[in-house]
Amino acid sequence: MKIVCSKSELVNGVNIVSKAVPANTTMSILECILIDASKGEIKFTSNDTEIGIETVVDGTIEEKGTIAIDAKMLLEVVRKLPDADITIATDDNFSTNITCGKLKFNIMGKDGKDFTTLPTVNKKDAVIISQLTFKDIIRQTIFSIGVNESNKVMSGIHLVIKEDELKMTSLDGHRVSIRKVKLKDKYEAKEIIIPGKTLSEVSKILSGGADDDISIYIEDNYVLFEFGKSIVVSRLIEGKYFAVDKMMSYDYETKVTISKKALYDCIDRSMLFSKEGNKKPIVVNIHDNVLEILVNSPLGSMDEELEMNKQGKDITIGFNPKFVIDALKVIDDETVDLYFVNAKAPCYIKDENDNYIYFVLPVNLNNSNY
Amino acid sequence: MKIVCSKSELVNGVNIVSKAVPANTTMSILECILIDASKGEIKFTSNDTEIGIETVVDGTIEEKGTIAIDAKMLLEVVRKLPDADITIATDDNFSTNITCGKLKFNIMGKDGKDFTTLPTVNKKDAVIISQLTFKDIIRQTIFSIGVNESNKVMSGIHLVIKEDELKMTSLDGHRVSIRKVKLKDKYEAKEIIIPGKTLSEVSKILSGGADDDISIYIEDNYVLFEFGKSIVVSRLIEGKYFAVDKMMSYDYETKVTISKKALYDCIDRSMLFSKEGNKKPIVVNIHDNVLEILVNSPLGSMDEELEMNKQGKDITIGFNPKFVIDALKVIDDETVDLYFVNAKAPCYIKDENDNYIYFVLPVNLNNSNY
Repeated sequence: MKIVCSKSELVNGVNIVSKAVPANTTMSILECILIDASKGEIKFTSNDTEIGIETVVDGTIEEKGTIAIDAKMLLEVVRKLPDADITIATDDNFSTNITCGKLKFNIMGKDGKDFTTLPTVNKKDAVIISQLTFKDIIRQTIFSIGVNESNKVMSGIHLVIKEDELKMTSLDGHRVSIRKVKLKDKYEAKEIIIPGKTLSEVSKILSGGADDDISIYIEDNYVLFEFGKSIVVSRLIEGKYFAVDKMMSYDYETKVTISKKALYDCIDRSMLFSKEGNKKPIVVNIHDNVLEILVNSPLGSMDEELEMNKQGKDITIGFNPKFVIDALKVIDDETVDLYFVNAKAPCYIKDENDNYIYFVLPVNLNNSNY
Repeated sequence: MKIVCSKSELVNGVNIVSKAVPANTTMSILECILIDASKGEIKFTSNDTEIGIETVVDGTIEEKGTIAIDAKMLLEVVRKLPDADITIATDDNFSTNITCGKLKFNIMGKDGKDFTTLPTVNKKDAVIISQLTFKDIIRQTIFSIGVNESNKVMSGIHLVIKEDELKMTSLDGHRVSIRKVKLKDKYEAKEIIIPGKTLSEVSKILSGGADDDISIYIEDNYVLFEFGKSIVVSRLIEGKYFAVDKMMSYDYETKVTISKKALYDCIDRSMLFSKEGNKKPIVVNIHDNVLEILVNSPLGSMDEELEMNKQGKDITIGFNPKFVIDALKVIDDETVDLYFVNAKAPCYIKDENDNYIYFVLPVNLNNSNY
């Protein structure tokens, strides 16, 4: 095989497929990136058996062929190359020369035929959404997937398509995040659970703007994302997702409208005294037109009053500040609405049209020393 | 004690003195910053018994007094404060309120009287140098001090003053770095060994430009740096420094003039194959008008030819690439001159006026598989 590409194409291609190279594997061929120049285009592929990525790299094929090269080494080498045309040439023993002017690298490759091919997914009935929006809704839900949960379903994001609405839901034992967006077209109803890791990697590769689309193809056991010159194929998580709709009630006794930044900054400060291992809840005390946040720990205490608008009753309720701040972090609005029922029921942070709904379970303050 | 300062003054002051708060100590009072508002100005002090830092913070003293506050906690709290006037007030039990509008932090302080005061250094015969230059020459020598050496002298930088010349030297077992600068005035001859850590911290705090000076006061066992509103006091390292002048010879058989960037980039690439644990030397092969760098390791090989100007003989010599690249990294010139005697003698990288001299011992290639 002999190909010629620009450094930038090469770096970009290797960067994209590197995302699916497993960190720890007993199959050393999977630590490689497959360069396939056997069929008229230069294709880079990686495969960790859960996720596979394929991307097309612009360049010239001077001699057809394939080679598998250790991904880490290839990434390091291409990053260090001068900004010019690069030639990659292999011999029958898989010895690979990467040359550029008077610079020559030589590394040992592996037989491309040993590389595990990606599963085939039927490319029909694509769900189409803008790359920018898809990246946004991943960011706005992925933070609350369950990590290290015994229930595998929690480690995924529930994606539901119903007519022209796409809904993504994630949850762990303490909170639920829901984002809904309108699609341009109507689609047949579909529902799948995508591993969090897959969406996290897709989100990292997505570079397009609001006008660039991503196509999502769904099959029984696989999902395929296609965008730009790349595809990502992933296994789905089997099982039934939680009936989140049934957990939720929209009755409330107290509604608070408050500046998101003021609330965020205040909770951020309170976290100085509620660190890991300490796990002090914050007390949110809503009375008159003041939202007061208190925290009292062996390290010290904080007390701050914020202005707000309130409808309904006064309430005192405790939270793990991390769960509240995680939700505030991904909300782009300047003001947020908080809904409370009582000190033992979850707090809802949601906008008027339910485009986003975050609900966070409270902490029982009777067990704390308040 | 009760004082009022702006957030920025507070953050700046705490940041400066934090540099001398010990990471591990059995004396918990030394983990604190002393706030001393007993004498008409607000002074922050830290002391790890090797280095002490003192800085004056602008603000209003409403009630005189002192307090010692845990440095880590204070730094975190002040960083999180809103950008406004901050009040710090203490009571007789050292309970400390840090307030700003409707925000109140409370943390426990310690009796300021328990804080270890800094050693007194006689402020006479200051050596004066621009802050920018001093920061530069620290950066250009500190990288080659000996780390974990049994000889404590190696962990310091040798500072020699002779008339209007200031010279700094550092060395470990493999290389020597020397920087000389001209001072505006002439001084009595002085020579001291300053701990590398001290100069590293001084360099971090120095924020002034070319027109701002630093004054250096030298006593038998201590050195004191004064700049802006801060002073840094440090113990000196006892002992006699190495007679570096006697190690050096300026005869050479080969002189190479080469682009610094080209050489730096090439050695940087070669280091892909000469990592920790692998320790492959690079081979520098100077022949005709080409400087060729080769490296050959189990991971792969590299071979690159660079253009250069040569005077004298051809030579083949091996190096640990890290030692060469460390020196190139701190040289600001676009072209560098390299001087060689033979494959077993050090290589000198120096400018025409000996403002900088870096010398690096070679690696014996006979012990490698070349």
